[in-house]
Amino acid sequence: MTPASSGPATGPRKRGRPARTSASDGPGARDRILAAARNEFAERGYDKTSIRGIAKTAEVDPALVHHYFGTKEQVFEAAIELIFAPAMAAPDAVHGSREGAGERMARFMFGIWENPVSRLPLLAVMRSALTNETASVVLRGMIERRVLLRMADELDVPNPEFRAQLAAGHLIGIAMLRYVIRMEPMASAEVDDIVTMVGPTLQRYLTES
Amino acid sequence: MTPASSGPATGPRKRGRPARTSASDGPGARDRILAAARNEFAERGYDKTSIRGIAKTAEVDPALVHHYFGTKEQVFEAAIELIFAPAMAAPDAVHGSREGAGERMARFMFGIWENPVSRLPLLAVMRSALTNETASVVLRGMIERRVLLRMADELDVPNPEFRAQLAAGHLIGIAMLRYVIRMEPMASAEVDDIVTMVGPTLQRYLTES
Repeated sequence: MTPASSGPATGPRKRGRPARTSASDGPGARDRILAAARNEFAERGYDKTSIRGIAKTAEVDPALVHHYFGTKEQVFEAAIELIFAPAMAAPDAVHGSREGAGERMARFMFGIWENPVSRLPLLAVMRSALTNETASVVLRGMIERRVLLRMADELDVPNPEFRAQLAAGHLIGIAMLRYVIRMEPMASAEVDDIVTMVGPTLQRYLTES
Repeated sequence: MTPASSGPATGPRKRGRPARTSASDGPGARDRILAAARNEFAERGYDKTSIRGIAKTAEVDPALVHHYFGTKEQVFEAAIELIFAPAMAAPDAVHGSREGAGERMARFMFGIWENPVSRLPLLAVMRSALTNETASVVLRGMIERRVLLRMADELDVPNPEFRAQLAAGHLIGIAMLRYVIRMEPMASAEVDDIVTMVGPTLQRYLTES
């Protein structure tokens, strides 16, 4: 995926005062701002990240950040859209034959978690959501709209949204023990051994009525 | 349980300068300090809680906090021991007939989570562990020693510690969706409906080899 094409915030925002034009306001400015926002939120969390800090990292005027993305909350939304982009293919992993859907979902999610490049920003966003109410609301809305509702559409069971959340909750909890709290033996277990146990559980949640 | 008798820090610590005696250093001082620590950590999280703040809330000299509990890390350990006291009976819930062990564990944990008095400090400790490395290490050690190893002792399956963590991870993840991120429909689901789905999963993890 390319940063410039992902996310809902593709149209420039017009409210507030118009952005000043500067030497840095070139065609790549929006991408630089988004990349800077991703890094700032991932490294500092929601509370400690500022529009000013993002602008400084992107080497643009803070007004340009407002111009493209709006408020801090809206910049956060665009940044986590970028951070969650890999996870958004989860419904596609579930799509297909019912047989093995649970294992496909488990393998897909561990594929993302096992890669530090995708894992670290995801953990940072989870931390932000746990410690800041605004970040929590934004994250919840995005996971609901972009992952769980689409996944529920793939399911042919009663209460598909509840089922999708049982499966997602299970994976999130295992990820917390393994990657955040790093509790042994979970932290050092082979992914295959986890998938062997968790796959049939997800299969039951996603396919058995 | 009584605060004064719980936890490893029952003996007064002798290192550092001796605590000054004051009018507030009565027989109830240790309990007051522990209750104050519980509240301060639950309300402010690990980073923003100080020995000085705990002492102020407990109306004692800060030296007395050091005298009874040692460092901030050790006060935190004593406080979360108190906060986690309800959850420490989880192995007893699993104890007994294999049949229904999974459902008993699920019901037991939701009984704790559904009560705001026990839920709110637990969430605060989880937040602290997610945002502070020291808090994470202390929490991990306590859950391992006091809950998961004892639970693993009750299990007659291969890799009982891994199995206990799969079950605990599942419940933690559901709790995050339901109580922290408050995602619907999980947040408003009936506990019975969650237990109906999750119970058989825990049963498989805890009893099937």
